[in-house]
Amino acid sequence: MSDAALSRPKVRLHVTQSLGQGQTVTLEREQAHYLFSVMRLAPGDALALFNGHDGEWRACVTEAGKRSGTLVCETPSAPQVMPPDLWLLFAPIRKERTDFIVEKATEMGAARILPVATDHTNAARIRQDRLQAHAVEAAEQCGGTYVPPVDALRPLAEVLAGWPEGRRLMFCDEARAGPGPALAGEAPGRWAILIGPEGGFSGPERARIAALPFARPVGLGPRILRADTAAVAALALWQAALGDWR
Amino acid sequence: MSDAALSRPKVRLHVTQSLGQGQTVTLEREQAHYLFSVMRLAPGDALALFNGHDGEWRACVTEAGKRSGTLVCETPSAPQVMPPDLWLLFAPIRKERTDFIVEKATEMGAARILPVATDHTNAARIRQDRLQAHAVEAAEQCGGTYVPPVDALRPLAEVLAGWPEGRRLMFCDEARAGPGPALAGEAPGRWAILIGPEGGFSGPERARIAALPFARPVGLGPRILRADTAAVAALALWQAALGDWR
Repeated sequence: MSDAALSRPKVRLHVTQSLGQGQTVTLEREQAHYLFSVMRLAPGDALALFNGHDGEWRACVTEAGKRSGTLVCETPSAPQVMPPDLWLLFAPIRKERTDFIVEKATEMGAARILPVATDHTNAARIRQDRLQAHAVEAAEQCGGTYVPPVDALRPLAEVLAGWPEGRRLMFCDEARAGPGPALAGEAPGRWAILIGPEGGFSGPERARIAALPFARPVGLGPRILRADTAAVAALALWQAALGDWR
Repeated sequence: MSDAALSRPKVRLHVTQSLGQGQTVTLEREQAHYLFSVMRLAPGDALALFNGHDGEWRACVTEAGKRSGTLVCETPSAPQVMPPDLWLLFAPIRKERTDFIVEKATEMGAARILPVATDHTNAARIRQDRLQAHAVEAAEQCGGTYVPPVDALRPLAEVLAGWPEGRRLMFCDEARAGPGPALAGEAPGRWAILIGPEGGFSGPERARIAALPFARPVGLGPRILRADTAAVAALALWQAALGDWR
């Protein structure tokens, strides 16, 4: 957080309603609880609102109840900023680390998060609603105005079989010795990052992915990274080379 | 973890003794508990040992007790690999996230970890022994043969006042709009990364750091990153540009 950010409202809330000058926002029960019981806001207090497409608005509390409340949008406080068109594909791991990957992917500016089941994936299911809530919370924290959608868990083979034309895949392959040419010479545009599961990709799976015409195998150094570390590292390399960190 | 890694001993243990052909390693109580009660190893089972300077050795359990035990080194299984000469300076934050930064810095190949107190640092003290134990555990997990030392907490101003000749500082400044020229044009060698605390650097502190002749201010994109995210991202950018990911 920068000093400049400290002078802005401390509380940021993601809402689903439209935002605009004078627009009234009626709170749901959980939102009212968060704002008035947890954060102790009262009528007259300011906060920041965003919904993923109308930018950030400075709003004011007009009614505060235990289970309900009303806000009014006052002035725009930050423009809507969309992330680059970058997907993150990852294999779910232990619960806390999966939560963590979703949090970090949101902070790092992924546009869409796709949990995928690989040959060595242990998790048979994910709590999609819970992961989506983590993405919302991360966006509230990181000052972003965009929340990446978290897809339902699908088999990696199925996602790759229906791969969209023109989207390249940064394939983070732990078995790749050395970093290789990485992203040098690649062009920005539609991309995805694929991070392997704990236990790595299976041999046949790795060969299949590497042979895909849209795959770009990239190494992440000589040490074995946990999946959550690898996700942040790959996102950083991509953002600096081809994304909005340039 | 790669498939190749799966065929190697699953258990890796950091020890302080010298390692070499036929060398006997007498276990401490906690190590014996971990190997025999937690990991269920028995006499005859293999494991991997490293001590930070003799490389990795395949060893065999020769005696297994509840509170003691003995191992014998058999054959070298991986060479000693030292990380680049990169320090990570960071301001301690909430306990779990501080633990996390140490874990990630070890995986990402930092050579030394320096907790520093900045103008906005909340933590007045750290558990240095606990953080060092996290670094050991991370090295055991990530297949590394090196464990970065974790220093005692010192004021940032003091560390910068005694800054060693010839070491450059990648100053990750959240207030820097846009990524800037980053590390392009810089040469490898002795470096450090400085990550700010939650709440950012104070204005005077930021100005002082940016004016240091060895400081290289670098931006980490348009979103506000948590300190732990920023640490992994900065380490990835440095390793890819100047470190052992090249």
